[in-house]
Amino acid sequence: MTDAQQTIRIGIVGYGNLGRGAERAIAANADMKLVGIYTRRPSADLVPSSGSTPVFALDALEQHRGDLDVLLLCGGSRDDLPVQSPRLAEHFCIVDSFDTHARVPEHYAAVDQAARRGGYTALIAAGWDPGLFSLQRMFGEALLPNGTSYTFWGPGLSQGHSDAIRRVPGVAAGVQYTMPADEAIKRVRSGVDPELTTRDKHRRVCYVVLDDGADPEAVREAITTMPHYFDEYDTTVNFIDAEELAREHQAMPHGGFVFRSGQTSATHRQVIEYRLQLDSNPEFTASVLAAYARAVFRLHRRGEHGARTVFDVAPGLLSPLEPDELRKRYL
Amino acid sequence: MTDAQQTIRIGIVGYGNLGRGAERAIAANADMKLVGIYTRRPSADLVPSSGSTPVFALDALEQHRGDLDVLLLCGGSRDDLPVQSPRLAEHFCIVDSFDTHARVPEHYAAVDQAARRGGYTALIAAGWDPGLFSLQRMFGEALLPNGTSYTFWGPGLSQGHSDAIRRVPGVAAGVQYTMPADEAIKRVRSGVDPELTTRDKHRRVCYVVLDDGADPEAVREAITTMPHYFDEYDTTVNFIDAEELAREHQAMPHGGFVFRSGQTSATHRQVIEYRLQLDSNPEFTASVLAAYARAVFRLHRRGEHGARTVFDVAPGLLSPLEPDELRKRYL
Repeated sequence: MTDAQQTIRIGIVGYGNLGRGAERAIAANADMKLVGIYTRRPSADLVPSSGSTPVFALDALEQHRGDLDVLLLCGGSRDDLPVQSPRLAEHFCIVDSFDTHARVPEHYAAVDQAARRGGYTALIAAGWDPGLFSLQRMFGEALLPNGTSYTFWGPGLSQGHSDAIRRVPGVAAGVQYTMPADEAIKRVRSGVDPELTTRDKHRRVCYVVLDDGADPEAVREAITTMPHYFDEYDTTVNFIDAEELAREHQAMPHGGFVFRSGQTSATHRQVIEYRLQLDSNPEFTASVLAAYARAVFRLHRRGEHGARTVFDVAPGLLSPLEPDELRKRYL
Repeated sequence: MTDAQQTIRIGIVGYGNLGRGAERAIAANADMKLVGIYTRRPSADLVPSSGSTPVFALDALEQHRGDLDVLLLCGGSRDDLPVQSPRLAEHFCIVDSFDTHARVPEHYAAVDQAARRGGYTALIAAGWDPGLFSLQRMFGEALLPNGTSYTFWGPGLSQGHSDAIRRVPGVAAGVQYTMPADEAIKRVRSGVDPELTTRDKHRRVCYVVLDDGADPEAVREAITTMPHYFDEYDTTVNFIDAEELAREHQAMPHGGFVFRSGQTSATHRQVIEYRLQLDSNPEFTASVLAAYARAVFRLHRRGEHGARTVFDVAPGLLSPLEPDELRKRYL
């Protein structure tokens, strides 16, 4: 039997936005089958996008071990994945989207140890950043050692910054969009290799619903001066009502740019640009998880156990096509 | 000893534009050392970019086997590589930039057999197309199964089309630039998933020096109606003198775009864009060969023998950094 001929049986753990995206991503891949959604919430509360997907309590995972090839862990990086990923990697192949950059080394170590102990394969920190953007940064520096790297995020909804404005006294609800600076992008793309400050690269735009009686100027001041989140940026705060927020700001677009601008000789500059424009951040992230589930499935079958990242996975393992077909079609 | 701590000793086979680029690329990588340039031409004729690089006849390769870790094969895909790559892969680790798309399967088979027989590792078809663009096409389809892929080339000098116009009677010299259509790129980037004809995607611009007494209109007609090369495109032919050709058209810029535009649900479109803007096509291609030489060196040391392509190589193997450093720095 060859890689392409077996159905990969997948479980989704956690059913927020990312889990919903994963459900769609699995349906889009002909060689994957969704076994079930596993969640802490009582299943009666939860209506999957597809009526035919069974929903189970997390506890059911143990009994389903023989029916599951890979789990997509769709919980949060702060509270869920630091516990779930190592725990589940001992008994299942997993893919997670752990995205707390600073804690990747300890997360990797914990998952690696558990996966090796159990004889499973685990891909951590999949998604687009970390994930595809990480790959581009690494490729850029390996291909053009003499150069400068740039990452711009957006236009897109930032969950972390939206959470931050919601914690400001007087704010009932709100969202924050990160906007890359067109002028800065143009300069990087032109190959002039500019030095850019934080303020040069991005601006921040907030849409805020005030609590009854809150002072808009006090709220604006509290947001725009917030350390780390806003104080180093040009920030615009727009006040809107709850109805407009519900109508105009429910989507979760995102994306960004990774550039590597480098010289290969005194007069020759080379610019590599990678850009994502995502209507739905969670659906795209889930698509990345699904493709890496295919790679994890294959690595596990070859006896390669332990934790992996996008740097360790040969790209061809993401594709449903056989190696000879990849060479014929894409080279 | 770890991957990052050993100098990789490299030989360049063939010393045209690509070979000259390879010389610079090796110098840009601190963990690489250029052992020599190997060429069919008598070495007295050949002045390397760096005065300190020794030049040898091709025959010397055999005696240098113990001093060379990887050869970068910088010959042409039509006449050189089909013979050189299998012959040398039996006795050396190699990287080549074989780019005759239709003949990749047979080239792969020949190199694979030779490399396995000799216990060496060979990476074929490295560069940017085939190569980095191939990777992007594969990633795009694996990540977004429901979508459309687009490749645009240029703005850039096309060697094949320049050769074609030089064969037209009455043409003394000339170059051809492939120009991607801005309007088509805008439409793809906007996510409307357009159907594009050959003529919609690119136009062709020629700069031609006429033979004495040649009829410009006859030359223009012969070029613009040339089957396969020009007849399906809007082509502009500019007549210039030899001095202007020498002054303005010696550079070899190139580049292009790979797009994947796909839907992850009824209302959500995701667009992935990869773009290269290259002042020097051969210097950039050589930079790709150098990075893959590092990967080949490591694969060989791990006992992985035979032919490989960009699909088979874990991205981290291209970087001089250790895996833990990659995770810390880029994830």
